[in-house]
Amino acid sequence: MRQFVIVGHDAHIDAEFSLEDLPGAGRMDLLARCVTASLLLSHGIRDDVRTWLVLADEFTVRFEGAALRGLHPDERSTAALVRNALAERDEAIGHVPVEASPGVSLFRFGFETTLEQAAADGSVCQLHEDGKPASEVDPPDDPVFVLSNHQTLREEDVAVLDSYRQQRITLGPERLHADHAISVAHNWLDTRGFAQY
Amino acid sequence: MRQFVIVGHDAHIDAEFSLEDLPGAGRMDLLARCVTASLLLSHGIRDDVRTWLVLADEFTVRFEGAALRGLHPDERSTAALVRNALAERDEAIGHVPVEASPGVSLFRFGFETTLEQAAADGSVCQLHEDGKPASEVDPPDDPVFVLSNHQTLREEDVAVLDSYRQQRITLGPERLHADHAISVAHNWLDTRGFAQY
Repeated sequence: MRQFVIVGHDAHIDAEFSLEDLPGAGRMDLLARCVTASLLLSHGIRDDVRTWLVLADEFTVRFEGAALRGLHPDERSTAALVRNALAERDEAIGHVPVEASPGVSLFRFGFETTLEQAAADGSVCQLHEDGKPASEVDPPDDPVFVLSNHQTLREEDVAVLDSYRQQRITLGPERLHADHAISVAHNWLDTRGFAQY
Repeated sequence: MRQFVIVGHDAHIDAEFSLEDLPGAGRMDLLARCVTASLLLSHGIRDDVRTWLVLADEFTVRFEGAALRGLHPDERSTAALVRNALAERDEAIGHVPVEASPGVSLFRFGFETTLEQAAADGSVCQLHEDGKPASEVDPPDDPVFVLSNHQTLREEDVAVLDSYRQQRITLGPERLHADHAISVAHNWLDTRGFAQY
């Protein structure tokens, strides 16, 4: 399984945000593109993918590829799935999630618990400019990639990440938007380290 | 220079399409994401990129990285740039473009003339599942990538492409959305064939 944890520090967590202004909802546009980049192929869903959006370190929306229905490639409809999940926030208690739509669940916890849960099923791989070039690394079987939406991680998140991190790789010399990095990371895995296909 | 030619067969070419329903405007959502995937880095613009959106084989919008202003990562504002260009369509006559905003020009021609113009500054590289694996190919200096939005190219477009095509490569075993393929193609070039960085 491939997992992606996307940290949205300033993401809006009320279900009132406007679908006409996704950038203004704490960069919900970028979070939506991370969901689609991680889960969609040209004609289908990557059913071996689980994607976590950590919103303002308070709530987390989990997308489960194997169970997803109704995910479309555009930002607006994907952001609507997030908003629908947030509309159920009063039902998410402790670590018990609420499933707002097939494959889309809302949890009342933030980055640390998300990473703990993701790491239980895989090995945490940080994408970082100081990491080892991906082409020199054998892709792990069950990677958990951690990305931040458009800011660097906060100091306390870095400490948490350091305690779980098993690898640190870089995908190339350019700093990419998180959604573009996800496409490249998938390709790295699809081709077994840019080698076999 | 890197160029991307994106073919949107059924893209709407009147300037009345709704920014609230980009998929309904002939997959304008995907075309917008192709623009941002080709032109944006995390904190800046790729100024060595020229991206062409061929709309319904009648009009073409060209984005020139070196001259662009006001390109944001979200679909809606990018689609608005396309719409603003289409609003000037009566001013685009013959091969003389109209510049609707800095770096964004509208031409009254379709796929064949676009490819002719793009090929004048580079070598045409088709992304195709039957192509040679990218990892076995040295990236060309001035590639012109040709992609289709969500359908395969029409027969007449394939004939045109065949007459200009110098390479045919595949990026991996999975069929990707055009915008995701653009992110991977950039990474292939950024890392000189997934090798050096």
